[in-house]
Amino acid sequence: MDALDTMGRHVIAELWDCDPALLNDIEQVEKIMVNAAIESGAEVREVVFHKFTPLGVSGVVVISESHLTIHSFPEHKYASIDVYTCGDRIDPKVASEYIARGLRAKKQETVQFARGMGKLKVEEQSVEAPAEESVRS
Amino acid sequence: MDALDTMGRHVIAELWDCDPALLNDIEQVEKIMVNAAIESGAEVREVVFHKFTPLGVSGVVVISESHLTIHSFPEHKYASIDVYTCGDRIDPKVASEYIARGLRAKKQETVQFARGMGKLKVEEQSVEAPAEESVRS
Repeated sequence: MDALDTMGRHVIAELWDCDPALLNDIEQVEKIMVNAAIESGAEVREVVFHKFTPLGVSGVVVISESHLTIHSFPEHKYASIDVYTCGDRIDPKVASEYIARGLRAKKQETVQFARGMGKLKVEEQSVEAPAEESVRS
Repeated sequence: MDALDTMGRHVIAELWDCDPALLNDIEQVEKIMVNAAIESGAEVREVVFHKFTPLGVSGVVVISESHLTIHSFPEHKYASIDVYTCGDRIDPKVASEYIARGLRAKKQETVQFARGMGKLKVEEQSVEAPAEESVRS
């Protein structure tokens, strides 16, 4: 088998000290997630978001290259996100950083996995404050 | 903050040597994923599956407790799955094992993460052959 066919990179990110109003705004969260996918160069296939009562949003953006997901906890200023991209054309960190900036996370912890290559391995692990940059609005 | 509010467990599983016909059958894949969620005791909120041409299925089951995802590569008998469940009521391994059996995986590699608890940490990592058991059909 050609490992390139199944290879992927999966970023798991824990975003802390986000803007709680944003985290509870399903339209904003969906926009940030979809734009993150586009920004990374992914092709968006399906978009599904769900608002919980009273607080929190869960959502998924299915892309040709795999998926982006989010689960937000406004009351804890926390969002749990995943960006998984198959192939080597797209860098999932571009999308995860975009989301972190969009949600105004003051702290993030990320782990990046190599997938589809045989042994599951952590490629990268970091705890950092995302750069304060503008996001598409 | 009460860490119990944000805690979750996330299983990343790489399923190898699956049944390639099943991996390419969107209805079967969707049924296995939804039943895996139900079997684990999760509450299904949204279901989105996408068939790629000529091969492969991507899909997501959004549950009240987070999500299950799959990306299948029938030509490589490989499926890449995630089961993420918030709270401590549901064991994501129940769902991931159900999916592995359902897709007739002969080999699987899994990593389980604790999420929403501060430091991201691997709770468990294993490479194994799933038990041959019947699944809901």
